[in-house]
Formats: sequence, C-alpha cells, structure tokens
Amino acid sequence: MSLLSPSNREIAENAVKAIHARTFFAQYPESPKAYGEDAPAQGLKAFNEQLGKKFEQLHQQNPVSWVGEEVSPYTMKPLGITYPTFEVDTLIVRAGRAFDEWKKISADERADILIDALERVKNRFFEIAQATQHTTGQSFVMSFQASGPHASDRALEALAMGWEELKRFPSSITWEKPAGKATLRLEKHYHAVPKGIGLIIGCSTFPTWNTVPGLFATLVTGNTAIVKPHPKSVYAIAIVVAEIQNALHQKGHDPNIVQLAADSSDKLITKKLAEHPLVKLIDYTGGSAFGKVIEALPGKTTFTEKAGVNSVIIDSVNDLAAVVQNLAFSVSLYSGQMCTAPQNFFIPEGGINSAAGHISYDDTVKALVDAISGIAKHPAMGPGTLGAIQSDVTMKRIDSVKDIATTLLEPGKVANAEYPEARTSSVIVLEVGAKDFGIYENELFGPIVLVIKTKNTTQSVELAKEMAGKHGAITCAAYTTNDDVAKLIEEEMESVFTPVSFNLTGGIFVNQHATFSDFHVTGGNPAGNATFTNPEYVNKRFVWVGHRKNI
Amino acid sequence: MSLLSPSNREIAENAVKAIHARTFFAQYPESPKAYGEDAPAQGLKAFNEQLGKKFEQLHQQNPVSWVGEEVSPYTMKPLGITYPTFEVDTLIVRAGRAFDEWKKISADERADILIDALERVKNRFFEIAQATQHTTGQSFVMSFQASGPHASDRALEALAMGWEELKRFPSSITWEKPAGKATLRLEKHYHAVPKGIGLIIGCSTFPTWNTVPGLFATLVTGNTAIVKPHPKSVYAIAIVVAEIQNALHQKGHDPNIVQLAADSSDKLITKKLAEHPLVKLIDYTGGSAFGKVIEALPGKTTFTEKAGVNSVIIDSVNDLAAVVQNLAFSVSLYSGQMCTAPQNFFIPEGGINSAAGHISYDDTVKALVDAISGIAKHPAMGPGTLGAIQSDVTMKRIDSVKDIATTLLEPGKVANAEYPEARTSSVIVLEVGAKDFGIYENELFGPIVLVIKTKNTTQSVELAKEMAGKHGAITCAAYTTNDDVAKLIEEEMESVFTPVSFNLTGGIFVNQHATFSDFHVTGGNPAGNATFTNPEYVNKRFVWVGHRKNI
Repeated sequence: MSLLSPSNREIAENAVKAIHARTFFAQYPESPKAYGEDAPAQGLKAFNEQLGKKFEQLHQQNPVSWVGEEVSPYTMKPLGITYPTFEVDTLIVRAGRAFDEWKKISADERADILIDALERVKNRFFEIAQATQHTTGQSFVMSFQASGPHASDRALEALAMGWEELKRFPSSITWEKPAGKATLRLEKHYHAVPKGIGLIIGCSTFPTWNTVPGLFATLVTGNTAIVKPHPKSVYAIAIVVAEIQNALHQKGHDPNIVQLAADSSDKLITKKLAEHPLVKLIDYTGGSAFGKVIEALPGKTTFTEKAGVNSVIIDSVNDLAAVVQNLAFSVSLYSGQMCTAPQNFFIPEGGINSAAGHISYDDTVKALVDAISGIAKHPAMGPGTLGAIQSDVTMKRIDSVKDIATTLLEPGKVANAEYPEARTSSVIVLEVGAKDFGIYENELFGPIVLVIKTKNTTQSVELAKEMAGKHGAITCAAYTTNDDVAKLIEEEMESVFTPVSFNLTGGIFVNQHATFSDFHVTGGNPAGNATFTNPEYVNKRFVWVGHRKNI
Repeated sequence: MSLLSPSNREIAENAVKAIHARTFFAQYPESPKAYGEDAPAQGLKAFNEQLGKKFEQLHQQNPVSWVGEEVSPYTMKPLGITYPTFEVDTLIVRAGRAFDEWKKISADERADILIDALERVKNRFFEIAQATQHTTGQSFVMSFQASGPHASDRALEALAMGWEELKRFPSSITWEKPAGKATLRLEKHYHAVPKGIGLIIGCSTFPTWNTVPGLFATLVTGNTAIVKPHPKSVYAIAIVVAEIQNALHQKGHDPNIVQLAADSSDKLITKKLAEHPLVKLIDYTGGSAFGKVIEALPGKTTFTEKAGVNSVIIDSVNDLAAVVQNLAFSVSLYSGQMCTAPQNFFIPEGGINSAAGHISYDDTVKALVDAISGIAKHPAMGPGTLGAIQSDVTMKRIDSVKDIATTLLEPGKVANAEYPEARTSSVIVLEVGAKDFGIYENELFGPIVLVIKTKNTTQSVELAKEMAGKHGAITCAAYTTNDDVAKLIEEEMESVFTPVSFNLTGGIFVNQHATFSDFHVTGGNPAGNATFTNPEYVNKRFVWVGHRKNI
C-alpha cells in the first residue's frame, strides 16, 4: 500500500515534470470561472459570516487572548476578526512535540497530506480572495489569482521540489567492496533528516503567495512550521493554516505540525520566535532592515525576500506606444506594491530609436507619463488595476517624495464606484538626474516611478547594475532592438544576479513570475538570499545522514 | 562538436551514476599496483629532485618572494622546497580577470578540462604520496591512497555532482501560455551564474583530500579558485594546482583560473583573503575557532569542516576480540590525526554482554587497551599504521593530558626501522567518569583515547548525543546486538545529525568514508556546515538566473 494516493502522486509527478521542463503549467487554473458558478457567492458568504467574529477554525487549544487589527483598504472599516494568540514557549513546545511525529513520516506520506491540504484550500479560493482584497487592497481578480491559484501552484512547486530531493538517493543499499579474494560488505541507510522547527514570517501585501512556498518547503522536508503573519493581513493565511491542520487531523496527525502565531502591532513576537534556539529555519518576506537581522542570526538557515530597486532600461523600441502601455500597466498594477514592480526608468537624454524613427527624450517620457495617467483615469481599468493602498505608511511616502524632485505626474485619488471610501493613489512620476543616486537608490515602495535621465544606454546599464548589486533587484525590464546592447544588458545584469525581461509588450508584464518556469528572486543580490523554487530552496531544510551496518 | 570528449563524458556519467546508486565505485583504484611497475620509482625520483629547490611548475608570474617551511615528520629535516608568494591584491585581480573568462564557458567544457586535470594528477600519484608522507606524517600507503586515488575520487564526485546540477534545467525554452483565443509566448534562457572567486583553505594533515572537493566544486560551477594551503603542507596540493593549470593552459585558458596562494606561518594571508569583498565562496578545513570566524563572515557562502568529538558506544558484542581489534586500528591509524577518528569510548560500568557471556567493565577496557597497545608494539604493523605525528603541538597535547585523568595506557615512541628519527607517539588511553565532561567535551586531536565509564548504555547514548550536538561529531561507532538499542542509538545520534556505524569488525573502519557512497560530515552539527558531497555542496556555488524575451 502506497501512502501517496494515485491522484496525488500524479499531481506531484506532473509538478516535478513541469519544474524540469519549465514550460507553462498550472495545477490550479487562474480563471475564476474554472471553479464553478456557485463558488464566488459561497466565498463571499463565508467571508461575510466571518466578519466581526473569532476565527475559530484552528486546531490550536487554549489561546491566551484573541487579537485582530485588520482594516479593509476599500471600506476603511475594521474586519473585526480576531485570532487566537499563544505564548512563544507554547508555540515552540507544541512544534517540538509535533516534530517528533512528523519527522518520522515518509516523504510520500507528507506529500500526500500536503496535496490534500492544497485541494482543501482550493475549495476556499473565493473566501481567500475576499480576505486578501480586504486586507491588502489588491483588486478582487488579483486577490483571487495571487492568493488562490498562483499561491497554490507555488506551494505545489516547493512541495514537489522537496519531494523529489528527498527521494534523490536510495533509502538503503548493500555496499560491496572487492578486497582481494574477499568482499567487504555493509548495509547502508540514508535518511533525509529535517532540521527542526521552521518559522515563516509573512508580509502584509501578499499574505499567502509569499508565505506558502517556504511553508510547504518546510513541511514536506519534515520540519514543523510556525506561521507568523503580518498583523494587518492574517485572514487569508489563517484559512490556509486551518486547512493544512484539517488535512493533518484527517490522517490522524498532530495539527500542531503547523501553527498560526498571530500577534498584534503593539506586541510583536517575531524577534522572540526567530531568536529561539529551537527555531532552525526562517522564511522571511519584508523590509530590508529586519531581513538583515534575520540573515545574521547565528545557527539558522534563512530564506529571505527583502526589498530591491527594479530598473527599466529603455534603449530602443519598435513601437513606443506598445512599450509604454505595457510599462504603465506594470507600475500601476496594485499601485506598485509588488516586489517585482519597476521603479527606476533609465532613459537616455539623446532620446531613443524606434521603427517609426528617432524619438526625443521628452517625447519618450511624455508617452510614458500619458500612458500611466491614462490607466489611472480610465473608469473601468483604473480601480481594477491599481486597487487600493494597503498601508498609511505608503500614502505618507507618496506625499513625502513630492518635494524631492521634479514631478512629471501628480498623484491623485483613483475613482472607485464600488468603494468610494477606498484608500487609493494613482502613480506619481518624478524626474531625476543620473547624479541623484541618493534618491533612486532607495526602494520607494508603492506607486512611485522615477525617470532617470542618463547620458546614454551605457550609463543606464551601469547605474541599473550598480543599484541591483548594492541594493538588490528582483526584476529588470529592458527595451532594445539592438542585439549587442541586449547582450550587454543581459551580461551586466546577470553579473549582479538579476533576471532581465526583454521587450515585453502586450499581455506579459515584468512583475509576473510564472510558477514552474520563472525563478522568483535569484538569491544572489541584496533583494533576498533565496529563490522560489530552486533545489537549494528545499535541500537546505534537511540533512543527509547515512548509517552503516556490518552484515 | 561536443566540448566534452567521449572518454571524459563516460567518466562524468559513471560518476553521476555512482553518486545516485551509492554502491561501491572508484575511478582511481586504491591499489598502488594498478599504476604500473615503474610508477613508484618515478614518483620517488621526482620527489628527490624537487627537494631543496623552488617549486617552479606553477603558471603564476612575478612572485614577490619564495617561502617554504615544510619539515618531514619522518626525518625531521626541512624539505627545503620553496613556493612563490603574491600580494593578496595580485591574487584577487588575477582571479577576477580569469573569472570573466571561466564563467562564460559551458559546464561540459569545464568538466572536460577538470577531468583532464585529474588524469594528469593520476600520473603524479606517487610523487604526491611522497609529498604527503613527508609533510603530514601519514604512512606511505595511506599517503598514496588518501592524497592520490581517494582524493581524486572525491574531486570527481564534486565535479560530477556540479556538472549534473548545472544541467538540471534546460538552457532555453519557449514558454507558451494559453490566453483565451491567443497564446502568450516568451523565449526563456536559464543561466547557472557562478558567484565569483572561491577561496579554499587547506589543512596540514590531509592537504589534498580535504581541499580538492571544494576546489573542484568551485571550479566546475564556473568560479575561479585561490588555494591557500597550510604552510607546513604545501607540496602535495601544489602539484594538483600545477596540473589543473596545465590542463587549463593546454586548452588555451588562463591558468589563473586556479592559483596557489602559499604563505608562511609568520605572515599568514588567510584572513585577509577570506575577508576580501570579491571572495564569495570559502571552503575551510581546520580548527573550530577560526572556522567559526569564517562561518560568520557576512556575504560569503561557506563550507566548513571543523573539529568534532567522535564517540564509540559499546553496549553488547558478539566477539569482543574482533571489536577491540577493529577499534584499536581506528584509533591508531595515522595516530588518531583524522577528523573521523574515535575519541570518546562510552562503556557501561556494569560491563557488556557478548556471545561468550557477560564481560565486566574492567575486562572490556583491558581488552581494548591491550589491542591498542598490541598494534603500537607490533614491529611491522606499528609504524605502518600509526605513521608519524604531523605537528609538535600534537606531541605537546599528548604530554599535557597525562595528568588530567587516570592513565590506562602510557604513550611512547613507535619504533620505525626505516625512519629512526621519526616524530611518533603511540596512543595514550585515559579513563574518566561520566561527570568529567570538562575533559571529554574537547577534541583532543591526535592519539588520545578517553574511556568514559557510564551508568549504562542509556547514559552512554545521552552523553554521545550531547557531545555531538554541542561540539560536533563526524562519526559514531556503536556496538550492540540488541535491535532496540540499535534503533535508540540511530535515532538519538541522527537527531544531532551524526552518522552511526554499527558493529564494524574486520576490514572496515569507522574512520573511512567511501566516496560516492558515504556523505562525509553531515553539515548539521558543529563539526562543519557542509558535506562531501551532497547537492547543496555544489548548488550553493552558483545562482540560477532566468531571462525572458518577447517573441
């Protein structure tokens, strides 16, 4: 009897195949329509029923208190949901006890349970979408896709990569060495031994997408997990944790193999958890300052995604209108609150070449600004693309940058007929010189675009490379019709471990990294030390130990 | 045209197969006889011709000075060989320049050159054996095997693992995503981008075996390498570096892709090299104190093998004579100067069971002491097994431990007819109580054995586990005829990431880790943070970067 059901085995094997082929694959379709006619209404109903109540779906006993501080960026009203809190020691003791059970279970059995969990999560995609929309400010469709199918595909990717790595070497062999007329013989066993307790620290803008890869990588490799969500964005990942607990419980396992560790802004437990000696793995998404603290903790294996400054290099184009339309969407999508959103636009002062002839710097910039402005002002496209602003801090940042440089496009409210109270801001576009690195070397998180006037493309590339090397970058968009320039950009950006997307127009955007195909974050520059999902992302979570026995 | 010759491809593919099968495999036979009748004399001749002269085989121009301080532990005379030295900045600049060339070369081409290099090294195994014997104090046969075929097999293992990982994902694909009636299309390229300059810091006792895995892992993944040998043990690895440079030169590549960075004890350059911002990878073998410094350097990927305290747990045996004979050899081999040598023997005060009936604690200890003493006193076996002591520090350590506990076996000179001046010491055996952890928690490097009288096997396991968890362990030997006890030992030692060898007798010893089959050091306890050779050992040396292009 296999512990991995035939249908789950097929899912795992397809995922492994997709990881290796790197062509398009999606276990969970991104179209809301794929999930049945009733699903959206059921999700909304569940969401409405949860509002104002305790979240009582977790299998975690005896909380010390209930906390909740989520506010919808669309209605500006508190969700009123509270989550159980526990002492750090309680979380650690429960995780340690659960570890003794979970570490002994086979890779197949772990994969089986975790795929069951993903199937359970699938049934709650629409509630998760509502939860995401009303905590992060993402549009509904983006909330659905990012926190639903895209996140689950990333979780499956990490799960499948781990499952493959765990089975990479035989569990036992007989070793026979010829020694003259005799033969030396040993029986050998190889165990992939998990490291211990893993802590997964979530962020406010992508509560599931940025959390589930580390969570599933940690769990499939036999570690237990404590999920510490951002206090302003708990609901979506709480559902995921609850469903993993349900899947564990159903198979007779301790649900504390994964725990939710909610806390409140005035009493954060992240640092105490991270520093606990029994916490061996830490997955972190968030700001650079605390990310560096996490990376420097002795005796921990860390996987971080911090901040970066993403560049756009415009050298030459076929059709400028198509280029600026694509870029305008990229900076407008979720109001630039994506780690992959472009920020620094390097444009040469001498202008750019296009299929329709030379275009001056001013005309290039104007086309870009008009396209950005056009999206925000479009009654249907505006709110659906820009969504809302997750945090007041971002609103203040938009305000504070107004004075630091020439404003090419003023920010303003994005009209939203459905949610007139929504906290919104269109994109502000500023212009700076190549010498103003004190401005553009900072990640200005949110709908803030800097146009940097450079001497030429050579300088553009030089500065983009310097920014990525010093401050990190997750993406780089480049536009050139010249193969030599393309080669230069690829080589230079690659030397600072930054992937380049060339000449994107139409329906593919630099912010979008496809699961099973695009490595998300390279791990090679200050933007983060880990990747979704390469082999290192899973095999640093366990240790190969080989025992030998005389026979 | 393939850049990997058919014969070299076969070698690489066989090595990959062996890594996955983990059964016995040796590309380089360990029997000296396999290398032809004339080889030993030629090796000796080359060695004698090198003595007292500059080592002028390196392709490294314009040294600033020549240094050498190697002394034969057998003759106690200086070898008189000097090696070129260079400013740290010179080494870094040359490694950086070479990196620009080497990083662009395909995995196949790198593997081809490195396998060529190993074939060249093979032709010098006997000179390397002489060089090793007269710097480390290993016996000639051990010098030959450890620094020759065993080291080259470990190098090939790392090379093959790296080669496999580099080719794990396709170099380019076309990505097609259905989007309604249209299809979104991207051309994607995936590059395994090397991290930069690698520093490999060698040790005095295993100058090639502990250096070449990191060196070949670093090189095959496209990084350039600076080899910093121990000043007392340069000659053997200098030959290896020279032959890699020859192989590079022959294919028209910059020999500075690998450089030897010799220094002298009064002007060590290790720290300066390690701290240089362009050094991204560090492989280190050596003491724990400096190893911790290396591991804590920010912005570096480190692979360390430090010290550990290896335990023997004796619970019950079939044939005590066979057991103590095996263990006596393990502690005597190269006078305990192996990172894998057992040190702490946990024996229950109530004695042990055997197939021939119960044996008291005193009789068990006496059998062990007699067996150890027997090897040292055996005129043929003694010098061939114990070899000589590499360092005066080890001699002083043997002297200094005499007073700290009850001496069960006094150390003494090991008679060596061939080398009457040899610096030798037989094994000292001390007895301590379970409470004396202040003594046995230290690695007492060299021919020092501690017998620790415990209450029972449960306490033995508890203490062995505690030592491994707190201070690191690379091996654990356990003797038990009880399956439940075996299970307990395996589980407990595994929880501190220590491999256990059960009931070894006859010709297999706990100190010997077989290439392609045994992971050497787990990386999970303080004995070191890396393993020869698991996937992590190679894939932490490069970064996957995927570029995308509109088509």
